[in-house]
Formats: sequence, structure tokens, C-alpha cells
Amino acid sequence: MSTALTAGTIHGVGLGPGAPDLLSVRADRLVRGTRHIAYFRKAGRPGQARRIAEGMLREDAVEIAMEYPVTTEIPVSDPRYNACLSAFYAECTERLNALARAGEDVVVLCEGDPFFYGSFMHLHSRLAGLTPVEVVPGITGMAGAWNATGLPITWGDDVLTVAMATLPEEELTRRIRDTDALVVMKIGRNLPKLRRAVKAAGREQAAWLVEYAAMPAQRVTPLAEATDVTPYFSILLIHGQGRRP
Amino acid sequence: MSTALTAGTIHGVGLGPGAPDLLSVRADRLVRGTRHIAYFRKAGRPGQARRIAEGMLREDAVEIAMEYPVTTEIPVSDPRYNACLSAFYAECTERLNALARAGEDVVVLCEGDPFFYGSFMHLHSRLAGLTPVEVVPGITGMAGAWNATGLPITWGDDVLTVAMATLPEEELTRRIRDTDALVVMKIGRNLPKLRRAVKAAGREQAAWLVEYAAMPAQRVTPLAEATDVTPYFSILLIHGQGRRP
Repeated sequence: MSTALTAGTIHGVGLGPGAPDLLSVRADRLVRGTRHIAYFRKAGRPGQARRIAEGMLREDAVEIAMEYPVTTEIPVSDPRYNACLSAFYAECTERLNALARAGEDVVVLCEGDPFFYGSFMHLHSRLAGLTPVEVVPGITGMAGAWNATGLPITWGDDVLTVAMATLPEEELTRRIRDTDALVVMKIGRNLPKLRRAVKAAGREQAAWLVEYAAMPAQRVTPLAEATDVTPYFSILLIHGQGRRP
Repeated sequence: MSTALTAGTIHGVGLGPGAPDLLSVRADRLVRGTRHIAYFRKAGRPGQARRIAEGMLREDAVEIAMEYPVTTEIPVSDPRYNACLSAFYAECTERLNALARAGEDVVVLCEGDPFFYGSFMHLHSRLAGLTPVEVVPGITGMAGAWNATGLPITWGDDVLTVAMATLPEEELTRRIRDTDALVVMKIGRNLPKLRRAVKAAGREQAAWLVEYAAMPAQRVTPLAEATDVTPYFSILLIHGQGRRP
């Protein structure tokens, strides 16, 4: 470059569980103020993060939709899955880095908290050393979920386990047995397996499914009564029963 | 009462990890707008929740400081501990309920998220059925802590375990061995025990202590280099190392 430019900053911004007024004040300011706004989405879908930010963007905002090349078409165990996603994240990194090097700030919308099972982490690790990156923490989807049930998730000395429904059934069963409070995410097509694991651990009566927490479509169902589950924003909870003076 | 009054609402409001601009937009509005504001604190201390809200209160705000009768003077295992706290929570409930019955709204300040190891839960369970109660979720202290380290806490299918340092040493060791990512809270005087447990699990080199996350005094120290720890807002973290395409 012939002129010295100050590099822009890439902001990974946690949007919280879904309600527009559950963004932090810091996140709200960044989302409303930015010209360049990026988000992940499944091809052909509006994108859940983008949906949370609906109505908040500047009129002249330039949107960068980063569309996942695969989601469930290739099994995670297939090496092509990793290779494909890796190339995708590298390409997104290049795209955002080019903007930052041209002096532009970019806000990347992240559901929940960016450092908690988020996609932004894959850009964050690649952008390190290339350009300034700032992360704004957010209210996690699981906090939105236990709030939706109207009951605390943990009391006193309760142990909380957070596990993905993609784990093998026996491991799920073992972990559900061995915890006070439980959060399970990435449920989708793993619901039958998860249900078997919860049952085997003897805790079906204590388990709740929360869908679309903090969104208009919010729904809380006892696991025993749930027939299926929405692929996104579905979280299973078992509340802890610890010490309560 | 001779006149029919609409009961006020008790709002349990999550303040997030510490920075004033990490309150949610909803929490920020409630805290700035309320006339009656309540918070827990240790006797003779300003109170951590109150400190986060410094500079945000209405000029005519009426403050209700709810001072814990005991914290560490009586061991948790002593039945007097529970009895003493139980009477205290009942008294606080009565005080807030009286305001609500007089038609006043009250905001109760809660560090982090009210339903995640918070004190507000003990009012919430007692207020149920007496008066309307609303809870605003918040960014947890642990999210503030992993954000402070600049690294994601969980990737892919990582299992996250959240445990209190008050647990017995062998149980801590076992759980630290059996998880990908770890969060430990309530450290304080349990630091030597926690350090032995982390060491016994072979993970001392991966452990970080975060103090005062998202506050001006924020400090991130490798556990191996930590000599002591501040009693409040200290969190131990081990980051997950899961799948990252």
C-alpha cells in the first residue's frame, strides 16, 4: 500500500439468546453503528443471528452473509467435512481481513456468546496477528433457556454439565447420571438418542426442552411430552436441586 | 387495604460480569428507571452488584441494602448457617413484598445471571405466588472470565463442567480429570485445595485464574503463578481443545 492506513477492527459481537433488548449496551451500540456487518447462515436461510439484529442496522449497512458450505450433508466424522469447513473459514477470514486492512471496522453477529461453542471462534483464531479483533461477550442461549423455564439452573454447590447431543449415547448417559444440573445443545436429529440417554440415567421426569428461548416462538416442553424438536435454538435442561436455605 | 391497588413487580436483574456497558439493554433501562433498588451485600461493604450500577441510578432512587447476616463466620455444614440465612431471606422477601403490595416496582441488582448460582433465587422462590416477579438474564461472570483470557472456552463437542471449589478435594479431582473445559467458582479460601485437585488431575499447566473480569482491576494469571486470590469474582478456567476445522 502506498499510504499508511490504520487497520480496522473486527468485532465479534454476542447478541444473546434472541430478544433484541437482551443485547448488551456495548453490543447494541456496535451493531447499530457499524457500516460493515457480517454473519454466518445456512445457504438459502435468513440466518438466526441476522434475524436477531433485524431492524437494528444502519440504512447504509453493507451486509456480508457467510454461507456454510455444509451443515449436515457430510457426516462430521468424514475428513471432507473438516477440509470443507476449514477452506470456508479461511475464505471468510480473508474477506474480513481485506476490509480491516482497508481501514474498515466490521461487526460479526454471533448468537449467544462468541466464545461459547460459536462459529466466530474459527475466524478469531485465524485473524489473530493479522488485524485487531475485539470480542463482546453475550448472554448465552442456555441462560435464555433456563430463564424461559422460570427456574434457577443451579443452587449452592451444584455441578453443571454442558454437553452436546452429538456425543455417543453411553457417554451422554454417563454424564447425565453424574451431574446435578444439565444443559444439552446441538440436539436436532439427535433427539431420539438424547431421550434414550436421559431415560437410561433415570431423569426423564426432570428434563425440559426449550425452543427459541427469548424469542416470540419460545416454547418450554417437558421432555416426556416432546415429539420432535426444532433444529435451531433447542436446548435440553435439567435443573439442579442443591442447597437452598 | 381500603383501595384496590395493582401490585408492583419485583425485577431480578442480571448485571453481567462487571462492566457497566455489559448490562443488557433491558437491564440498563430497568436499573436507570427504577425508584426502588435493592441489592445484597456483605455488612460494611459497598456490595459488588451496587458497585457495577454506580452512576446509573436515578437521583431520587431509594436504596435497599440487604446485608448478609453471615458469610464465612459459620461453616456451611453447621445447621445454624442455613437457619440464619433462611430467616434473612424471609425478612428480605417480606420487605420487598410489602413494597410491591403498595404498588411499587422494585429492581433487585444481581451480579452475572440471576438464575446461575445467584442470591436472588432465594427471594424468587419465596416471592412466587405473592407478587409478580420478572427475571432479566445476564452475561454470566464465567463468560466475562473466558472473554478476559481472549480464548474460547469450548469448541465442537467439548464437555464443559462448572463446579464450586467448595466441593471435596477428591470430587474436584475426579471432575477436573473427566471434562474437556472447566469453570470453577467460589474459590476464595479454597484455592490451596483447588490447586491440589488441578495438579492431581494433571492439568495445572492449562489452568488460568481470572479475577475481576470485565472490571478495571481485571487480572488473568496462570494458576501455576498465582499465589493467592481475591475473594470475589475469582474464576478458574481450563479451555476446551475440541474440534476446530
